[in-house]
Amino acid sequence: MQVSAARIPTSFSNEVPQGEDRERLVCQTCGFIDYVNPRIVTGVVAHCDGRILLCKRAIDPRKGFWTLPAGFLELGESVEDGARREAREEACAELEIETMLGVYSIPRIGQVQIFYRARLLNDPTPGPESLEVMLASWDEIPWKELAFPSVKWSLDAYRATEGQTGFAPFGNPDGADHMTR
Amino acid sequence: MQVSAARIPTSFSNEVPQGEDRERLVCQTCGFIDYVNPRIVTGVVAHCDGRILLCKRAIDPRKGFWTLPAGFLELGESVEDGARREAREEACAELEIETMLGVYSIPRIGQVQIFYRARLLNDPTPGPESLEVMLASWDEIPWKELAFPSVKWSLDAYRATEGQTGFAPFGNPDGADHMTR
Repeated sequence: MQVSAARIPTSFSNEVPQGEDRERLVCQTCGFIDYVNPRIVTGVVAHCDGRILLCKRAIDPRKGFWTLPAGFLELGESVEDGARREAREEACAELEIETMLGVYSIPRIGQVQIFYRARLLNDPTPGPESLEVMLASWDEIPWKELAFPSVKWSLDAYRATEGQTGFAPFGNPDGADHMTR
Repeated sequence: MQVSAARIPTSFSNEVPQGEDRERLVCQTCGFIDYVNPRIVTGVVAHCDGRILLCKRAIDPRKGFWTLPAGFLELGESVEDGARREAREEACAELEIETMLGVYSIPRIGQVQIFYRARLLNDPTPGPESLEVMLASWDEIPWKELAFPSVKWSLDAYRATEGQTGFAPFGNPDGADHMTR
């Protein structure tokens, strides 16, 4: 969903706007400054009777791999609203959000991902972005077919805090972005 | 920092891109889709000997009012890195981040604000975006001259959890965006 370099309008060039300390793309015709900031992905580990909702992706990237309901937060939404919308879109699922599981910074792709634990309130079915959905027990999770690292991180955070409330959200599991807990 | 309607290039118009469910600004010449998503503000309640670092804003909005070091997360940063950078820019402050205090959704202005508690490691001095800095005891905080609601929310979250770790971050204190804790 990011514009490729070849599609940036020719009137744009990199410059440091007045009062700033880094280059931005600026339109030389109208002065438009194209601020690009990290985007928020919001998602959920939705559970019911100890089983976890997973969706097999119908779209790239990682088509055919299993993921948690998650996607880009849209304007006008709270982070929790966005998580509920994604679960509705991807698995026709209705949720009661319980607590925050993790906040993961992924600077390489300009994302901050926020995952919640939620109680699943209905029977999920695949939405247009999913080939199928499943309610997996811990042992049934297709660990080798998960779409993204943060899916595993969030599942691990869920497992480590099952039944608990009042804990600090997990950060990236290793490396420079590991949050103090 | 947002483009005003008058400055949107005339080749852009609102349409629903294929496979999506909402209007985006699309350039009719080159097909560029201008995805606009909420932005992340990252900030800190930095403390030293029970005093809290506040900065008097040198720039609009809310010039002359007191704030916590905070600002927009930039590409290539973790949320914690961004908080450290903002403290450095606004108060020449070096920090050790301790824990997450709050995650606030402010859909009206397209922001998600993430605040940490941090230990202040040096003597702060005003950076170019601050008129002055202060280290305030709780009773010295200029409550009627705070720049933004989330400054108060974060200070309250700090006070409610002073000396604690392992707690869930606070959400918006009231209204529809209040997070389950």
